[in-house]
Amino acid sequence: MEHVSLPPLCHLAICGGTHGNEMSGVYMVREMQKQNVDRVGSVSITTVLSNPRAVDACRRYIDTDLNRCFTSELMSAPVTDSTPYELRRAHELNAQLGPKESREGVDLLCDIHNTTSNMGLCLIFYSLDCVPLHIFKYIQSKMTSTPVRAIQLDEPKSEAFSLESVGKHGFALEVGPQPNGVLRADIYNMVKQAIDLCIEWIQGFNSGSTFEGGEVEVYTWVKNVDYPRDPTTKEITAAIHPQLQDNDFKLLRPGDPTFLTFFGETVKYEGEELYPYFVNENAYYEKAIAFQLGKKISKTLPSISMKRD
Amino acid sequence: MEHVSLPPLCHLAICGGTHGNEMSGVYMVREMQKQNVDRVGSVSITTVLSNPRAVDACRRYIDTDLNRCFTSELMSAPVTDSTPYELRRAHELNAQLGPKESREGVDLLCDIHNTTSNMGLCLIFYSLDCVPLHIFKYIQSKMTSTPVRAIQLDEPKSEAFSLESVGKHGFALEVGPQPNGVLRADIYNMVKQAIDLCIEWIQGFNSGSTFEGGEVEVYTWVKNVDYPRDPTTKEITAAIHPQLQDNDFKLLRPGDPTFLTFFGETVKYEGEELYPYFVNENAYYEKAIAFQLGKKISKTLPSISMKRD
Repeated sequence: MEHVSLPPLCHLAICGGTHGNEMSGVYMVREMQKQNVDRVGSVSITTVLSNPRAVDACRRYIDTDLNRCFTSELMSAPVTDSTPYELRRAHELNAQLGPKESREGVDLLCDIHNTTSNMGLCLIFYSLDCVPLHIFKYIQSKMTSTPVRAIQLDEPKSEAFSLESVGKHGFALEVGPQPNGVLRADIYNMVKQAIDLCIEWIQGFNSGSTFEGGEVEVYTWVKNVDYPRDPTTKEITAAIHPQLQDNDFKLLRPGDPTFLTFFGETVKYEGEELYPYFVNENAYYEKAIAFQLGKKISKTLPSISMKRD
Repeated sequence: MEHVSLPPLCHLAICGGTHGNEMSGVYMVREMQKQNVDRVGSVSITTVLSNPRAVDACRRYIDTDLNRCFTSELMSAPVTDSTPYELRRAHELNAQLGPKESREGVDLLCDIHNTTSNMGLCLIFYSLDCVPLHIFKYIQSKMTSTPVRAIQLDEPKSEAFSLESVGKHGFALEVGPQPNGVLRADIYNMVKQAIDLCIEWIQGFNSGSTFEGGEVEVYTWVKNVDYPRDPTTKEITAAIHPQLQDNDFKLLRPGDPTFLTFFGETVKYEGEELYPYFVNENAYYEKAIAFQLGKKISKTLPSISMKRD
């Protein structure tokens, strides 16, 4: 069986408020800063409120979505007076936590998000990186009362647009359902538990433990589905069907209801069997996404331990 | 038993988007406008998107909360260049649907709202008006699968600050839980059913039916409860306790948990037995309201029929 050995993970960044109205991360980061959490055992921890102006306004963003700003192309473009606020802030974060694809970046970046979708606790990361996969496997084995899932993105790192791509390793922690602007204790506690387990895993890794590999199930994106729309006004003409609403990660089969029009008609799914997620996510209305569809694949994960010099 | 007779209710206004990120009303009004609903039987219907700029921005409001603008004092103050957008819009709405406390106002104004709280379907109205109480009783008797409740406000009409106070009779239809910016089919269908029943009741009333009186239960406001806060920074230090979250209208007794601090400590309720509602409503964070508490009272409702000339 394959084995991977990697340098110790000495520097962890925990970010919240990348979207200013996703409150779990905002309050988690503020609380850690208030308690002056900057080291746990072998791990130095940097906590960052990523988009403070959007947090103050309790909006996703001020000028543009911060979590779409971190491609290598955007990170190498000059900042001018007309650069949108979030892109300027992305350059600051890249300087603080990266630079992206350099030896100086933080070892692991965890960025906390919320969704209005009923997705439970989801780790989202780029493929070809087995560190978040091992952390996912560890959290999933420990948090037995919560559904814990992984979504793997297939972009190369240079094209990765989200904040966690700035670290050497990274993942987004996506937790829901929680309305934007609202803090729910149950969701906050899930996030807290996942962060604690992530730190626990790193401690074990840095102390020389070997984590066994094995088979893990992850979801990979296949396509987006938009709302039915009026051909002229482009306004949506239907809501997510009650049978799909809140049923993220439940296999969607041809003929299953997807939308209920304002006239009361049911729109049925046509296409191959796939798994829906981000069902009725608030922020995706403007991106013309009613839900995403993905495949569930089984991945063989190598065992992992720290490389000794 | 007391009996009330009133003139026919010829003109109904249905408003949505008074708060621009409460989507049930936005889509209900748009759909009715698309279908050119301007009369049903004996009732002429005006549909209004109350705060179009906030709807476009998908925010509660642009400058100030529109639904706090309709006091007689504000409605009689002059509009100047420095008047906030929503107050100018309130004057327009008052001209279109009122003027408030005049003979020209619409006979009944129904303003559609959403809450992130688990309040089911709630009619909110001012006391001393038995028309919304009768409509409440009618809707409650017909929508048996949904909890239907009434909250009665005790301000005199001149001090009433919300849009529905512009009509001769009026109520807010408050429906949840639904995240801001999100449209749920189940909530939309509840609103649709309630509007249809309201119109059905008016048809019956205008055709000469007598609606029997009787005892009805309504909630009346007693006090607001704020989040625990840091005495220096004023930031909140706790979330609504999981045992209170989603339990609107479940009697709160001394010793019951109300908050869970970020340290994991439970804050318990002290005070008389009361009913919580608007528990963890998004928009009330800025108003320093974690939840409201009210009494449940029994009201004797007179029978009602149309006054014949």
